[in-house]
Amino acid sequence: MPISNKVEPYAAIIGAGRSSFGEQWYKDPEKLVMEAGIRAMESVDSGLRRRDIQACYLGSFLYQATNKLSLLPGYMSRELGINIPMSTTEAACASGGSAFYNACMAIKSGKYDVVLVGGFEKMTDRVSKIVDDLMFAADPHEFDAGFTFAGLYATMMARYIHDYGQGQSRCIEALAQIACKNHHHAIDNEYAQYRREISVDDVLKSQPIADPIRLLHCSPISDGAAAVLLTRPDLAKKYTDTPVYVTGSQQATDDVSLFTRVSLTGIKATRLAVGMALKETGLSMEDIQIAEVHDCFTVEEALFLEDSGFYEVGKAWEGIYESYESNKGSKHIPYVKDGASLIVNAGGGLKADGHPVGATGVRQIYECFKQLRKEAGKNQVEVDGDLNLALTHNIGGTGGIAVVHILARDVA
Amino acid sequence: MPISNKVEPYAAIIGAGRSSFGEQWYKDPEKLVMEAGIRAMESVDSGLRRRDIQACYLGSFLYQATNKLSLLPGYMSRELGINIPMSTTEAACASGGSAFYNACMAIKSGKYDVVLVGGFEKMTDRVSKIVDDLMFAADPHEFDAGFTFAGLYATMMARYIHDYGQGQSRCIEALAQIACKNHHHAIDNEYAQYRREISVDDVLKSQPIADPIRLLHCSPISDGAAAVLLTRPDLAKKYTDTPVYVTGSQQATDDVSLFTRVSLTGIKATRLAVGMALKETGLSMEDIQIAEVHDCFTVEEALFLEDSGFYEVGKAWEGIYESYESNKGSKHIPYVKDGASLIVNAGGGLKADGHPVGATGVRQIYECFKQLRKEAGKNQVEVDGDLNLALTHNIGGTGGIAVVHILARDVA
Repeated sequence: MPISNKVEPYAAIIGAGRSSFGEQWYKDPEKLVMEAGIRAMESVDSGLRRRDIQACYLGSFLYQATNKLSLLPGYMSRELGINIPMSTTEAACASGGSAFYNACMAIKSGKYDVVLVGGFEKMTDRVSKIVDDLMFAADPHEFDAGFTFAGLYATMMARYIHDYGQGQSRCIEALAQIACKNHHHAIDNEYAQYRREISVDDVLKSQPIADPIRLLHCSPISDGAAAVLLTRPDLAKKYTDTPVYVTGSQQATDDVSLFTRVSLTGIKATRLAVGMALKETGLSMEDIQIAEVHDCFTVEEALFLEDSGFYEVGKAWEGIYESYESNKGSKHIPYVKDGASLIVNAGGGLKADGHPVGATGVRQIYECFKQLRKEAGKNQVEVDGDLNLALTHNIGGTGGIAVVHILARDVA
Repeated sequence: MPISNKVEPYAAIIGAGRSSFGEQWYKDPEKLVMEAGIRAMESVDSGLRRRDIQACYLGSFLYQATNKLSLLPGYMSRELGINIPMSTTEAACASGGSAFYNACMAIKSGKYDVVLVGGFEKMTDRVSKIVDDLMFAADPHEFDAGFTFAGLYATMMARYIHDYGQGQSRCIEALAQIACKNHHHAIDNEYAQYRREISVDDVLKSQPIADPIRLLHCSPISDGAAAVLLTRPDLAKKYTDTPVYVTGSQQATDDVSLFTRVSLTGIKATRLAVGMALKETGLSMEDIQIAEVHDCFTVEEALFLEDSGFYEVGKAWEGIYESYESNKGSKHIPYVKDGASLIVNAGGGLKADGHPVGATGVRQIYECFKQLRKEAGKNQVEVDGDLNLALTHNIGGTGGIAVVHILARDVA
């Protein structure tokens, strides 16, 4: 489905690059983001020189506490030998998405022609302390009560199973199938942290972390970076014949902590941001063909399917189960319902591709850009008809912030 | 001098508020920024309701390491009971200025009608550890070599005295007079941390910190917040008859560390940002009537006067000395030269008003807004002719980033 010609894109993506995700003990965070940035520049069809970039937007969550860094623009200025404006956005695990959001606004303002967005995180050399650092994105009362993020999402998952799947082993299986699907999707993703199949049995027998969450429900601790290049829509064809347009760009916030929420089985910020993004693009969730969803823990992918309206509230697990069982043999396993099919996390998502927190939001844009341009190589998704519409969903904490973008290859 | 009608303002400021600066042990950082935000809302002539604000831009340097906080949007959403998009910018001591810069871009993009910018910092309860935390904004090699920020600026000050003022006691005195002037300016600033006169003798006999920097050359450790409200220029008159327009908005970066710089006696990022801001507004430094300058250490105010071109390189100390000696009796002590007069840090600057790092850039905008609207009460500056043009200068680290804004009461 093409986007209505009444929708004026915010920006056009003309290049994207990324590093491998996983343990990168021998690379500084600045080097990781530069590696991604240089690959993004090299990917621009027309070629692009460093001096063509007029501003940088950077996203990272824990550079301060974990990396003992601050004032990233000053470091990047040194690494790149440039003096252009640079801005650093922190929004916990949505830092990358939020930096991309600010960059879209900068392009839309008309101030800049070409902007680089870089997301990155260096987590593994902090070893076990990283779990405490991550709790900066939760309420201190939750930390004091002994919660980790696995614990917080376990609370949500337990409630989900209690409310909607009680006594149904298929609900438990469905929440494990999400991990299996995402590992399956990462097999041909050369940058992914985990490129191996796992079974429902593997997930359910893996080490318990915070009941009902087990190790293989969790996204990993990762190092990595991703970068994309944006330009004004009217300039895009100067750089490439196949730009990807940013047609929806929304962000919403909600209380940082779970204990004041009306519901534990949905993320209000996701509902608001997806709703506004669909509205501004004149689309419905059924029009979206591929989505990069924030599956930090598998339950969050299920919640997204309900918060976005793709499945009815309380019914995602049934949809997941049926979709998985009936599409097991496929290269990519879509979520299906009457008249719609949605491939989620085509490159493996946070679960298997990896989750260097500040990089994730930008990596999601990278993945959609490559897929929409049919440049995903062996991992290219195939859909009925033209592949044109993608959505990214990046959240911070347990949903204190959600950033949603809708990308389109063709605009009317 | 009015701004040329060819200059299209980025945004219009319609309200501003701030907290007192100093020790605020009984207020959380979120409460401080809310206090400033509510005062900003109350200051809007037409009245403004919470739901009129469509987005928030927040700036803070050390919320993560010092305050053990992250994901500010999630906290603010709880405090305010709203779900609007919020973005957090970190740029060391320029975090407030950088958040304001991003907010101007958001208004210019046309996406939002009314945006709140909040800058804040809570530093004092970290006690002596804060000096280490601040070093996140310096190169780790500088930290490892034993530098503090006072040490880094002492290096710059020593070099300045060596290159331009050797053997001249008036150079030493001039760098002390900056502190005396800023304390004098703060006497009638009800929010200022230090409201007492100090003499050149007091400065030069105060405790040595890092030679040649003494205690009274340094801005203090402070808690505080400031907030301003922005709208589109074409909507401004709906909210107030006396908006203040943002006509210049520029940011530049440079290597984070001193040891690679060609010169220690000037800040390249300042030169670039001031130059671009003057260029885009069609002004020269001589047209600016008041400026809020980043006097974290007195030498930086002297460097600004040279980097901005107000005084010739190496000559600022002479201009400072002569201006101070000939204007000692004045309510505000301007820097003068042939045909131009510039009042710097009318409210006391970082030195006397206080320097809660993330708040400073927004506090500078607050001060200029109040002065340009002639709402500064007993601290109102008087200039020859109409007071119309103000400049703010906010830097991070030792100049890894500089953010410069030019504000105008009247636009053609």
